[in-house]
Amino acid sequence: MSFVLQFPPAEDKSPARRSISTTDALALAEPLALELAATAVARDQAGGHARAERELIRNSGLLALTVPTALGGLGGSWPTFYWVLRRLAQADSALAHVFGFHHLQLAGVQLYGTPEQQRRLLGQTVQKGWFWGNALNPLDKRLIAIEAPEGYRLDGVKSFASGSVGSDLLTISAWHAATQSPLIAIIPTSAPGVTVNADWDAFGQRQTDSGTVSFDAAHLLHSDVLQPPGVTATPRATLRSQIAQLIMANLYLGLAQGALQEALRFNQQDARPWFQSGVGASVEDPFIQHRYGEFRLLVRAAQAVTDDAAITLQQALDCGSSLTSDERGAVAVAVAEAKVLSHRAAIEVSSQLFELTGARSTSARYGLDRFWRNARVHTLHDPVDYKLRDLGRHALTGAWPEPTAYS
Amino acid sequence: MSFVLQFPPAEDKSPARRSISTTDALALAEPLALELAATAVARDQAGGHARAERELIRNSGLLALTVPTALGGLGGSWPTFYWVLRRLAQADSALAHVFGFHHLQLAGVQLYGTPEQQRRLLGQTVQKGWFWGNALNPLDKRLIAIEAPEGYRLDGVKSFASGSVGSDLLTISAWHAATQSPLIAIIPTSAPGVTVNADWDAFGQRQTDSGTVSFDAAHLLHSDVLQPPGVTATPRATLRSQIAQLIMANLYLGLAQGALQEALRFNQQDARPWFQSGVGASVEDPFIQHRYGEFRLLVRAAQAVTDDAAITLQQALDCGSSLTSDERGAVAVAVAEAKVLSHRAAIEVSSQLFELTGARSTSARYGLDRFWRNARVHTLHDPVDYKLRDLGRHALTGAWPEPTAYS
Amino acid sequence: MSFVLQFPPAEDKSPARRSISTTDALALAEPLALELAATAVARDQAGGHARAERELIRNSGLLALTVPTALGGLGGSWPTFYWVLRRLAQADSALAHVFGFHHLQLAGVQLYGTPEQQRRLLGQTVQKGWFWGNALNPLDKRLIAIEAPEGYRLDGVKSFASGSVGSDLLTISAWHAATQSPLIAIIPTSAPGVTVNADWDAFGQRQTDSGTVSFDAAHLLHSDVLQPPGVTATPRATLRSQIAQLIMANLYLGLAQGALQEALRFNQQDARPWFQSGVGASVEDPFIQHRYGEFRLLVRAAQAVTDDAAITLQQALDCGSSLTSDERGAVAVAVAEAKVLSHRAAIEVSSQLFELTGARSTSARYGLDRFWRNARVHTLHDPVDYKLRDLGRHALTGAWPEPTAYS
Amino acid sequence: MSFVLQFPPAEDKSPARRSISTTDALALAEPLALELAATAVARDQAGGHARAERELIRNSGLLALTVPTALGGLGGSWPTFYWVLRRLAQADSALAHVFGFHHLQLAGVQLYGTPEQQRRLLGQTVQKGWFWGNALNPLDKRLIAIEAPEGYRLDGVKSFASGSVGSDLLTISAWHAATQSPLIAIIPTSAPGVTVNADWDAFGQRQTDSGTVSFDAAHLLHSDVLQPPGVTATPRATLRSQIAQLIMANLYLGLAQGALQEALRFNQQDARPWFQSGVGASVEDPFIQHRYGEFRLLVRAAQAVTDDAAITLQQALDCGSSLTSDERGAVAVAVAEAKVLSHRAAIEVSSQLFELTGARSTSARYGLDRFWRNARVHTLHDPVDYKLRDLGRHALTGAWPEPTAYS
Repeated sequence: MSFVLQFPPAEDKSPARRSISTTDALALAEPLALELAATAVARDQAGGHARAERELIRNSGLLALTVPTALGGLGGSWPTFYWVLRRLAQADSALAHVFGFHHLQLAGVQLYGTPEQQRRLLGQTVQKGWFWGNALNPLDKRLIAIEAPEGYRLDGVKSFASGSVGSDLLTISAWHAATQSPLIAIIPTSAPGVTVNADWDAFGQRQTDSGTVSFDAAHLLHSDVLQPPGVTATPRATLRSQIAQLIMANLYLGLAQGALQEALRFNQQDARPWFQSGVGASVEDPFIQHRYGEFRLLVRAAQAVTDDAAITLQQALDCGSSLTSDERGAVAVAVAEAKVLSHRAAIEVSSQLFELTGARSTSARYGLDRFWRNARVHTLHDPVDYKLRDLGRHALTGAWPEPTAYS
Repeated sequence: MSFVLQFPPAEDKSPARRSISTTDALALAEPLALELAATAVARDQAGGHARAERELIRNSGLLALTVPTALGGLGGSWPTFYWVLRRLAQADSALAHVFGFHHLQLAGVQLYGTPEQQRRLLGQTVQKGWFWGNALNPLDKRLIAIEAPEGYRLDGVKSFASGSVGSDLLTISAWHAATQSPLIAIIPTSAPGVTVNADWDAFGQRQTDSGTVSFDAAHLLHSDVLQPPGVTATPRATLRSQIAQLIMANLYLGLAQGALQEALRFNQQDARPWFQSGVGASVEDPFIQHRYGEFRLLVRAAQAVTDDAAITLQQALDCGSSLTSDERGAVAVAVAEAKVLSHRAAIEVSSQLFELTGARSTSARYGLDRFWRNARVHTLHDPVDYKLRDLGRHALTGAWPEPTAYS
Repeated sequence: MSFVLQFPPAEDKSPARRSISTTDALALAEPLALELAATAVARDQAGGHARAERELIRNSGLLALTVPTALGGLGGSWPTFYWVLRRLAQADSALAHVFGFHHLQLAGVQLYGTPEQQRRLLGQTVQKGWFWGNALNPLDKRLIAIEAPEGYRLDGVKSFASGSVGSDLLTISAWHAATQSPLIAIIPTSAPGVTVNADWDAFGQRQTDSGTVSFDAAHLLHSDVLQPPGVTATPRATLRSQIAQLIMANLYLGLAQGALQEALRFNQQDARPWFQSGVGASVEDPFIQHRYGEFRLLVRAAQAVTDDAAITLQQALDCGSSLTSDERGAVAVAVAEAKVLSHRAAIEVSSQLFELTGARSTSARYGLDRFWRNARVHTLHDPVDYKLRDLGRHALTGAWPEPTAYS
Repeated sequence: MSFVLQFPPAEDKSPARRSISTTDALALAEPLALELAATAVARDQAGGHARAERELIRNSGLLALTVPTALGGLGGSWPTFYWVLRRLAQADSALAHVFGFHHLQLAGVQLYGTPEQQRRLLGQTVQKGWFWGNALNPLDKRLIAIEAPEGYRLDGVKSFASGSVGSDLLTISAWHAATQSPLIAIIPTSAPGVTVNADWDAFGQRQTDSGTVSFDAAHLLHSDVLQPPGVTATPRATLRSQIAQLIMANLYLGLAQGALQEALRFNQQDARPWFQSGVGASVEDPFIQHRYGEFRLLVRAAQAVTDDAAITLQQALDCGSSLTSDERGAVAVAVAEAKVLSHRAAIEVSSQLFELTGARSTSARYGLDRFWRNARVHTLHDPVDYKLRDLGRHALTGAWPEPTAYS
């Protein structure tokens, strides 16, 4: 029966096919996470660019996590990467986002770039410790590319450019009027004519360096074009948006886990029992226990489905260029499931936790509201209702989510 | 059958038994609400004491809203007061709280005070434009009263004293060791030995002036004692906590309404349709329409039940000293229903609205997150789960909520 | 501000403007409700036509409840009618539906009929104790009317004809091909060519007599046509669908109340405490108390909003023929709110109650599952998601629900 | 950090360690499931003992699924067993329960029995095709064992004895007054003094043969006692209740999947689009798509967590007698998570599906209400609120669920 076939028993779910194991990667991430956590409340309040913390990330070696070992990287699998990302997001979801989007750009090079581009760009990323930012957003057609000698001239702006402030390289999309299609390319952030404006002012995810990037007659070299105008992406290349969506899911999940952890700590150490509860400690209150049970389920379900989605994604990537549209669609469904569940876990735990930690936990010195603010801002990347629509439509009609920058 | 009798058809729900009508009171409140709204985002970001805005409230004449006409007040009924409170909370829930707690103190004088105290204290409130703050919290036994000539000597502290910064008078409770019971009294904020510390630092409701009040050998006059130590409150007097709880409910409801209003405005004026929606305007997106339908239900249900609770409260107050414990219990049930529904409407609308207004609405310049932060901080006054317990216990066993400072 | 004006304080909510008071009408209904309750479980299991119980209803005098006193009826207001309906639905939602739809047909005569038709049809309903059934469903165009001497010839079928089995008169709609529009009329159930088939086989609401009615060259007299073909209904006439929708809402609410009542009784009398609860009686279990608190809120919110909607409806009816489309729209919004809240209260209480009453309560001898089965079948009359869409669309764009047979 | 360690990446999740693979076991189950599905609606309406269908199960060979290959069985792992169970529950959750509880009894022999008992009882189960029933319920102390020659004399009753009608052997617990403790044993259903009463009359799970078993001076042999009175169960032996709980979870999950599948089929084949939807087919309605997205998430999350729990359980069983209390506790947490999520998926999908399939789907001929009735009755085995309490308590205090017959 189709239902059984649709969700087969996982005969092999092992994510550890690449050089560095999940355990070793998490060991690299742990001291970094602790350092980020120690200053997360203060930096959330300050906002702005976290130069020092970006150096901590750079020094951890984890910027090379997803670069193949053949190019000098750690060769971590995508499941391994997502576990690391989630660990960092528990501590600081803004810098985790910067970290995650760095690797998204590296994935873009792997999916869209020629072997030469991969060697050159990924190799130098390892050697020079480059930090990448994102200015790719095909829906935004305000950046225009026109032919110029040995490449293109770029004029216009890109907004919501995550990690752009302080980056070394940017991935961009630009609208090519002649073909009525976008090109995808990379450009050094320091290139003449490129200006990054630190104008991100959302109430959460304050240190994601998601500024607006202006291009004023910037020159793009042919050799830095990953996908020329007029070319249709392969199913495999369109996995880039699935990698991005699963970065979101893992950031949400990390936020949910971090919020849950901090809330538990507050109840264990700082909360007082309600005077009508009849118990001697907040952690013994039956209603508080019951609601933590609900939190745990939210987080646990999101985690199980998100872990499965990472395995499905890796399997699809391992198919290489032979990946079919149907196989790509199955990834999109798995990732959409993970994203909605993680989204909800993050929003619900981060908002409801205060009903268990109580009035005193709202003091600014604890900064406990940062989880909700971060989750709230970050979960708006694309509308959750369209993810649900995609999931239901697939169940009803078999149609896969259309490959877009968001699905 | 008991169910029918329990919820009889309202033969007369008219709240307008007092001198000023709801319509006229709302007309007084409207310009005040608009002035508060104009600066609410900026003041939320600044925090601290809103001296100028408290003067606007004072100048509106609404500090006398619940003072009987015989004592020079406007004689507004409690339903009228709650409508005004809710209107102000739509604009600025922090100053609405200060306004609401001012009237709670006046209610305390009416419920606990002698006729002489009522005449003197309420009369002068009208004449001198006094603003009252709250330092009554019987659970907090850190403020000690010991006998002193012509009164008591007060030493200790009260925290979470709403509206204390900038107030003229305070209502206090103090622990009287000899009788192992609290006394309830009023004291001028400027009395020697009384110090108000502007140390409130929660992440929401930032301008409620809810500081810590220190008492260092402050002198309390016998004539300012509303309830001496060792005296048991009458059922009628214990309605003070119901007035307070219904203030909370109306503040939450106003927050929910304000959040809904701002969200609708954003979708109408600033939001863009999602590129997959197939519609030309955000307000035509079926999923956005559907979810606003949910918001509307949350707010509408809370409003209907909260309005009914105000009528039930007024009827109980109109019973005067003959009010029975059962009648008092029925008020407590009605108010608990209102409080839980309003609590949830405020939290859910203020958190979920962003899924409809989208990523751009998180810019700090809109300040849309203030609704959630305000609602989140304010709804922690006492645990919602114990309200639900009280409601279910009553349905199962007939037991009324125990009269406490919270129920 | 629009929000305040939209939900004005109810200056006069008194429903008792008509001859019989709510209290007196409920007194008439009470013995009837008790008699229906006594056999409800057995009749739910048997299904089929409840001839004896329909006679009980007839003998109660309540078939004349909404007929104006000038025509010999009890002159009950619509709020009064809905309270009676709800009381009956607590006991037996199938027969309550038959009772409610009888009055819907009488409303149709009042809204669409000429003064002569009203006098004749309503007057005889009182005198002869007629029971009316429904075969009006404009979406279903399978019943065709063609001109015939002194009227029309009717051929075709109507399904879901509530109360048709055992009725004296039917309201029908029929499609008139010449004008491409429906006519609305009444016809005696015993008229030649009319056959009622007792073929209703849903798993709930089993005794609603909602059969299929076949018409085989049945003759319809001009004098029995309430709305001829080609005539557009006035805003006032379209209130018929609002009366119907509010019948649904009150049936759902009665179901929710009945389920809650039976569940409470079970916990009070028959349930055992869970062995890990540490309490001596099921009613003292904190989790059970908490969840009954939730049930109470579901029911209470639905009741408050449904009561308000009945008042809004009555006010609109009292406007007479001057009712505007906007005023009609406000009724549709109020009724939609009531319908969704009551729908959910009925479904959630009737499904969840078993988690509190426990395994033993599933024995067929209690018949406790009938509430869910009845609510489930009955709440599918029209999709709840379109009600939510209508509510949200109104909030976003100001558009009223389109007047249809369902909104 | 503890959170990461608590949920480590699954390095090896392969369930296929035993002789028969999941794929092969599902292939055996598939024709059986189809045969059960073909008559499920009719047999749900008839209730009673499904003799013919029990023979189908017996003939499938799957009664030996969990018997070790060394004893002649198929040697299926527990993850494999749960996949088979779930497949059968999609088709017929009553007979799937009978099947599941048969294997629970076999597990009891493996966990409590001596090597000799295992050889004898499991070996003969394979050879003779025995079907086992359950009369083990330590909370129920009405069955009394007193010493008798070569064993015990049994007097009293056991209720809710799943699969007892038509069984060959029963597992029983009996209260031993002298030691104030239960013994656990097996007894042939046909033994003198044992009477099975087919008195199960719940409104769902109607063919589970869960009758009351009476014992009137029945003789129990020492050689058939699995756990003598006065002996404390090892952590490993107490896994029996986890096997039982995970049977529940998989039955609920199968119910949810079966309900979802039937609902999808109805929308695909039989439903009509709502007249206001603007689409040509029900499956294209955006609200219907959105809600199926929700269903899918409910089912998917439950499935992912339930599959993980089976792996955790198998790992614990593979530890053998060295299993610690902490390791046992981790299984209890994993299984509790699975049970709550599956419970909710089953109840919510089976209740809500009708809002998508519409009024026509309530006809008794489709029998679609059986999913809710079955899920509703079956999910009351033990209260879900105590599972949530256990999960939250563990998160707050580290305490494991206490080993009982339910946790």
